[in-house]
Amino acid sequence: MSSTAGQVIRCRAAVAWEAGKALVIEEVDVAPPQAMEVRLKILYTSVCRSDIYFWEAKGQIPLFPRIFGHEAAGIVESVGDGVTDLKPGDHVIPVPSGECKECIHCKSKESNICDLLRVNLGRGVMISDGQSRFSINGKPIYHFVGTSTYSEYTVVHVGCVAKINPLAPLDKVCILGCGISSGLGAVFECSKNHQRDHQLLFFGLGAVGLAAAEGARISGASRIIGVDVNPKKFDHAKNFGVSEFVNPKDHDKPVQEVIAEMTGGGVDRSIECTGDVDAMISAFECVHDGWGVAVLVGVPHKDAVFKTHPMNLLHQRTLKGTLFGNYKPRTDLPAIVEKYMNKELVLEKFITHEVPFAEINKAYEFMLNGDSLRCIIRMDG
Amino acid sequence: MSSTAGQVIRCRAAVAWEAGKALVIEEVDVAPPQAMEVRLKILYTSVCRSDIYFWEAKGQIPLFPRIFGHEAAGIVESVGDGVTDLKPGDHVIPVPSGECKECIHCKSKESNICDLLRVNLGRGVMISDGQSRFSINGKPIYHFVGTSTYSEYTVVHVGCVAKINPLAPLDKVCILGCGISSGLGAVFECSKNHQRDHQLLFFGLGAVGLAAAEGARISGASRIIGVDVNPKKFDHAKNFGVSEFVNPKDHDKPVQEVIAEMTGGGVDRSIECTGDVDAMISAFECVHDGWGVAVLVGVPHKDAVFKTHPMNLLHQRTLKGTLFGNYKPRTDLPAIVEKYMNKELVLEKFITHEVPFAEINKAYEFMLNGDSLRCIIRMDG
Repeated sequence: MSSTAGQVIRCRAAVAWEAGKALVIEEVDVAPPQAMEVRLKILYTSVCRSDIYFWEAKGQIPLFPRIFGHEAAGIVESVGDGVTDLKPGDHVIPVPSGECKECIHCKSKESNICDLLRVNLGRGVMISDGQSRFSINGKPIYHFVGTSTYSEYTVVHVGCVAKINPLAPLDKVCILGCGISSGLGAVFECSKNHQRDHQLLFFGLGAVGLAAAEGARISGASRIIGVDVNPKKFDHAKNFGVSEFVNPKDHDKPVQEVIAEMTGGGVDRSIECTGDVDAMISAFECVHDGWGVAVLVGVPHKDAVFKTHPMNLLHQRTLKGTLFGNYKPRTDLPAIVEKYMNKELVLEKFITHEVPFAEINKAYEFMLNGDSLRCIIRMDG
Repeated sequence: MSSTAGQVIRCRAAVAWEAGKALVIEEVDVAPPQAMEVRLKILYTSVCRSDIYFWEAKGQIPLFPRIFGHEAAGIVESVGDGVTDLKPGDHVIPVPSGECKECIHCKSKESNICDLLRVNLGRGVMISDGQSRFSINGKPIYHFVGTSTYSEYTVVHVGCVAKINPLAPLDKVCILGCGISSGLGAVFECSKNHQRDHQLLFFGLGAVGLAAAEGARISGASRIIGVDVNPKKFDHAKNFGVSEFVNPKDHDKPVQEVIAEMTGGGVDRSIECTGDVDAMISAFECVHDGWGVAVLVGVPHKDAVFKTHPMNLLHQRTLKGTLFGNYKPRTDLPAIVEKYMNKELVLEKFITHEVPFAEINKAYEFMLNGDSLRCIIRMDG
């Protein structure tokens, strides 16, 4: 039992006071974990696109003041009543999408969208009592996707915490909590039951798309094609085995037609990692008839509408979506960490920057400018 | 060798001279089969929705005069050069979607949309020479989907002919050439790789939807729900194991919400058999998140647009389409006939009417009025 168990911990957190305004490092009070909750000491965190989207709050419901952050790794500080799977000192990765292990989804082999703990982007409180565990001078500060890792300590539902190999370097595996696993898992999902030497194509060459490329490399794809409107991403993408590039801005016709011409009718599999609905439509319509599968990964604008002619479906194209790569976080994440440990999966090439916590706004800037894939934020700095 | 081989055959055919006007039984000349073609003596045929759609030519490109008909069974009369798989006297089912056995689709285990012989609804001629084999006083009459079975004799590409067990009763298995197989196969397609005791729902309780119900019965579905706007179809549907019915007209809210309430969040699998785009959207949105799969079977209006919010996909719903139930016609149809022969599949309950060829317009009326599932047309009558 740590000396802080049961006590309020005062620590540093990066608070977003307003949409789109620089985060401010504040002293916050972090309440002890309630039943089925754990309090984590965060050691490393990073910036994922969703932190940016909900901080900008464009096309999403604004909720401020809020502590963002959902890709991280840390150590259990204390646990609330009823928590038996975790104990202080365990090395963990918090995950926005939880796994209660009891609901119809958790009991299904196919689903990972837990009834109790599915990602709720609009909720800023803990589910047990509808309260925040963060406060400044008694005034609550909202949580984000149940993780809020831009704080030296955070409180998370036990179902949103994956216990991992204590030998794993937390400054590397911290990036597995969201985007990287989402891209990796989407490729494995769409390659399931696939009978051909497949070619894969990705829309969006940010970290999620490149994680999909990494998954394609692991799964032995014969041809890896990347699509992005930002040509400066192409150079970096070459390190991920992406050997052909399409910039939709270079062509007068729809990009799905360009891709069909390049590939003799379309690609076997495509993965949409941007969240842009036009890219989703292109990603679907560029798969080959007869067997093509498109998987959506990027989170869309709340008013987005996916449109296509139904004959594109009848011609035996399949369209599906994933959240967190269809991984059940508590069950599957430890095995992804092991893939890194045994060098099957390379994480270092995703880590382009590192900053101390005090400079977290720089990490936001790198992401906003498209300069970084992942910037690691050291919480002790 | 039959005495008519190599000769023009004069015989009766039902000619559609104009969109939506009664078919007229005419004497037509049927040219001998060219290379890779066979001439069939049709013994039984039936009316499928697509015969009606393209005869009405609403929302489709009109092409007249034309000989419709694509569900049938008959006997090979003669074969053209290069045909080695079939010989005069073979019992066969012609199929609109062919199988050349040479193209990338035919060589794929996943696809059945042959590059050479895929269904072409707008083409009215043979592919080898762009000519019709039918004429009246030398004036060509257009073909329909390569089959044109409303004629005592017809010419079909060898890739569009499935050779079947000669003991199979042709007046029953003739209905396997399109709609029934499409419904059956769609269920088997969406049940593939499925890990739960599944429930199935169908939009459209015509012959295709009821064939899907028959497939659901064969595959051991736990709950079979039917959706139709015509309540007089419900009684007949009970014979197919459909035990629950939803009429969208009985509800003020979208039918997908009604179904979600009935089923604790949605059905495991749904099959859309009407071709109506709103039904397609409902069929997709009513499957359960996490694992639901919707399969489109009905052929849409040429200007239809499928629309949905992409989050419906990201919540792990899958949307796909099939043509002819994903069956490869020459390879798979003989085995479906065997399912009937060994009483696994019941075809008699689909056959609600029978008329002699001279009364083919009655068969159209039965279908137009929603009175028939399948009306068998005896070509000798």
